[in-house]
Amino acid sequence: MQSDAALVRAFELLGRRWTGVILGALGDRPASFGELARAVPGISDSMLSTRLAALSKVGLLTRAVDEGPPLSVAYQLTDAGCALLPALDQISRWADEHLPAGH
Amino acid sequence: MQSDAALVRAFELLGRRWTGVILGALGDRPASFGELARAVPGISDSMLSTRLAALSKVGLLTRAVDEGPPLSVAYQLTDAGCALLPALDQISRWADEHLPAGH
Repeated sequence: MQSDAALVRAFELLGRRWTGVILGALGDRPASFGELARAVPGISDSMLSTRLAALSKVGLLTRAVDEGPPLSVAYQLTDAGCALLPALDQISRWADEHLPAGH
Repeated sequence: MQSDAALVRAFELLGRRWTGVILGALGDRPASFGELARAVPGISDSMLSTRLAALSKVGLLTRAVDEGPPLSVAYQLTDAGCALLPALDQISRWADEHLPAGH
């Protein structure tokens, strides 16, 4: 019995708290740091920074700066990040059906 | 901007290290504790116990005891657990294509 190396690699990333939720939140449209901080329940600013840096490092999101004024920064999924959205959608529908709220 | 409550719920579970890999490893067939311990890279026995107990508690796997002799115990996915397999498969294919090995 051997585990699937690609799945192991995927969950080295997705198995870190909030990562999947951050990616899902960016699925609709780019978002600012503040918007993400409000959209991801319970995450601290420093943890959100850490997660965004890790996702950027593996090429799943980019940080787009609009010089303004006012200066604004938006995080957005790359093509590789967007390619995960159908799986996240499937997971969401699975949880809706099989994971009772308040488990 | 609001995060998807079902996705948040799913990643309260899948966002704990090794959880997705354990579920994926049980996708092929039931497995003993020892088989799982060998199949999930880097997990300790106590962490594997903790993860199996959590997955059992939310109804994604069961522990089947064969009185033998020899006594044997196998962990296997429930229907709810099996229902997650297509999404895990999709994640694996995504990682294969978009997450370089050794990132």
